[in-house]
Amino acid sequence: MKQQRVLVLGGGFAGLECAKSFPEDQFSVTLVDRWNHHLFQPLLYQVATAGLAMTDIAQPLRSILSHRKNVTTLMGEVRTIDLAARQVHLQDHVLEYDYLVIAVGAKTGYFGHNDWAQHTLGLKSLDDAMAIRKKVLLAFERAESTDDPKETARLMTIVVVGGGPTGVEMAGSLAELAKVVLKDDFRRIDPSSANIHLIESGPKLLATFPGTLPDYTHRRLEKLGVTVHLNSPVKEVGAGYVVTGDQRIESDIIIWGAGVEASEVTRTLAGIPLDRAGRIQVQPDLSLPGHPEVFAAGDVASLTDAKGVRVPGVSPAAIQMGRFIAKTIIENGTTLPRPSFVYFDKGIMATIGRSAAVASVGGMHLRGFPAWLMWLFIHLLFLMGMRNRIIVFLHWVWSYVTWQRGARVIQS
Amino acid sequence: MKQQRVLVLGGGFAGLECAKSFPEDQFSVTLVDRWNHHLFQPLLYQVATAGLAMTDIAQPLRSILSHRKNVTTLMGEVRTIDLAARQVHLQDHVLEYDYLVIAVGAKTGYFGHNDWAQHTLGLKSLDDAMAIRKKVLLAFERAESTDDPKETARLMTIVVVGGGPTGVEMAGSLAELAKVVLKDDFRRIDPSSANIHLIESGPKLLATFPGTLPDYTHRRLEKLGVTVHLNSPVKEVGAGYVVTGDQRIESDIIIWGAGVEASEVTRTLAGIPLDRAGRIQVQPDLSLPGHPEVFAAGDVASLTDAKGVRVPGVSPAAIQMGRFIAKTIIENGTTLPRPSFVYFDKGIMATIGRSAAVASVGGMHLRGFPAWLMWLFIHLLFLMGMRNRIIVFLHWVWSYVTWQRGARVIQS
Repeated sequence: MKQQRVLVLGGGFAGLECAKSFPEDQFSVTLVDRWNHHLFQPLLYQVATAGLAMTDIAQPLRSILSHRKNVTTLMGEVRTIDLAARQVHLQDHVLEYDYLVIAVGAKTGYFGHNDWAQHTLGLKSLDDAMAIRKKVLLAFERAESTDDPKETARLMTIVVVGGGPTGVEMAGSLAELAKVVLKDDFRRIDPSSANIHLIESGPKLLATFPGTLPDYTHRRLEKLGVTVHLNSPVKEVGAGYVVTGDQRIESDIIIWGAGVEASEVTRTLAGIPLDRAGRIQVQPDLSLPGHPEVFAAGDVASLTDAKGVRVPGVSPAAIQMGRFIAKTIIENGTTLPRPSFVYFDKGIMATIGRSAAVASVGGMHLRGFPAWLMWLFIHLLFLMGMRNRIIVFLHWVWSYVTWQRGARVIQS
Repeated sequence: MKQQRVLVLGGGFAGLECAKSFPEDQFSVTLVDRWNHHLFQPLLYQVATAGLAMTDIAQPLRSILSHRKNVTTLMGEVRTIDLAARQVHLQDHVLEYDYLVIAVGAKTGYFGHNDWAQHTLGLKSLDDAMAIRKKVLLAFERAESTDDPKETARLMTIVVVGGGPTGVEMAGSLAELAKVVLKDDFRRIDPSSANIHLIESGPKLLATFPGTLPDYTHRRLEKLGVTVHLNSPVKEVGAGYVVTGDQRIESDIIIWGAGVEASEVTRTLAGIPLDRAGRIQVQPDLSLPGHPEVFAAGDVASLTDAKGVRVPGVSPAAIQMGRFIAKTIIENGTTLPRPSFVYFDKGIMATIGRSAAVASVGGMHLRGFPAWLMWLFIHLLFLMGMRNRIIVFLHWVWSYVTWQRGARVIQS
């Protein structure tokens, strides 16, 4: 029997899970990603705030897939997808497929203000995280060197836009970095006088979290010294400033955690409906309308599932989708009708800082230290690869005991 | 009593050791470095070959010096040193001193062929190491993507110039990366067919090592699959090739471990004698002729000590010099005559690969596994900071057991 060629675009949670789920004898799988690594995105903010090293949360895709002899990993950038010809064009060659899985993920979105991108720092890739780390650490170095108090104040002001989990985790971790970790390391400036602003357009932080969790998060962040601005949509972003309401905040470090949109390659899909954020509006079985051989999964797919639940852009959803698609291809091929995808909600959580988190799991609301312990446990469990799990755990134990952060290195 | 102002330029082994050796009440110390971190250079080749993460061998200077309340750390680039005015000019301000310690280290040297720099990769900074790592890993990724066998061969050829410890350690580690670590991770290419060339101008490798150690090293490297070229001075280096003797090797990855020269700032010292590599020819007490208040230490100082021994450019020598200078300033001030520096030779060592090293310590010659164990122990002992020591040790145990390398991440 001829092997079926499955082409998976993207080595994130959805694509990786899908690629490794095919039996070796019947399917030949090619996985394409523009990086050489799988990234554990939920911990990216810790790389950005010098808590973890880049390599602690990233693993080479071909090392993860080393023992899957039917999977070929290629590093490359997808330019266009030609559904009619069943071809995918990379920068320098063309790949053909029997089945295609589009799992290229999302990038930072600016709600139509793409000119704001040049003045802000996103948080989607390792490069983004390293850029934030470098900018933050350099700002404190420069503040220590300058004699101009106005310049010092500007250098020590950091703005985080977006009160969702990304923004909350960034703001909390930045506040701890400035006010605790760096406390004794400077002689001229006082790092604890740094201003961390968290700007949210809506009436509360963590809007998707139930009950008192948003309020609790708000109070905890203020206790850490974060200035929280609610009901404050961003009006303007320029070089070195951001305007919200009638307030103008001077800062060189504006971290954008407010929105995501699908990768651009979805725009090359002829005749496929996209939502406003560029995500593919998939069928209930995650396939593309009119193309039972093509699927989309993860942050690039837009779906309200068979039970009426909007599938969120979180890693458990991506993993479930990737696994579902592989199962569908293996069991049903292109024979219709096929089963519909149903999202299994494992709960949501976010950390606020050392020893504090919020979580909502199966109707239960947790906060404070118990939520943080749960967060720690779950994230360690999900981290790919034994080595990383041990090292990250040691980093955390070390940081917890000493308040030090191990990755405070500025690279050019 | 007025505090004496000591200005230390450079946070390497010499500068850091010196800066932390002054009593808090009598001396106010300023340490300037162009990076924010102290780098454990002896392990840089492991970062370059994806064995260790960047942050494993680098620690923020201000974190190391956090508890030395009389030390101010500044990140900045030294432009000129004005000995007459007792001033040091940084990019944006001027520092004054009562005592000056120049410990700015060395950079890659090309023996007058500075145009070769653009075609080769040095190994002196974290950036250098990350550039090598990226180029090597990307070459294998590209080889897996291309269908052109000639291009594949070129991509999988790596040249290391210089048969000293740096070159030997790089070549051995690269050979193990290609032939063992990456072995199962590719489907189209065979990483073990990579060609690693080690080019040495003289008649043997590790020329400063005694007895049979150079020959042993040669044999071990060949067993690892490295092609060793002796008596082969480099004639020409261009874009994508290197010429030695009548041989032209096509390669995009030419790693230069053949020579070092002092940082350029020594050229701004009016009236001070420099050797051919730009190093400062210091007095027996490590001071500059005619300037008892100015000292040089580490790779930037050139000295044959009071016992007639040429002080080598190794970290123990740098540490001894830094400590000696602090002691001299504290005990003698500028009062002449002062004691002369005597280098205490702790021995030399180099690793060849997994479980093999050579060492010469106090007349004893060690090789193979015992030498490697000794190398491991000494390097762990010298690594600064407890966290790093544990993490690096775990990395090594992990790599030793699994043959995996944890830092195989390509960043843009």
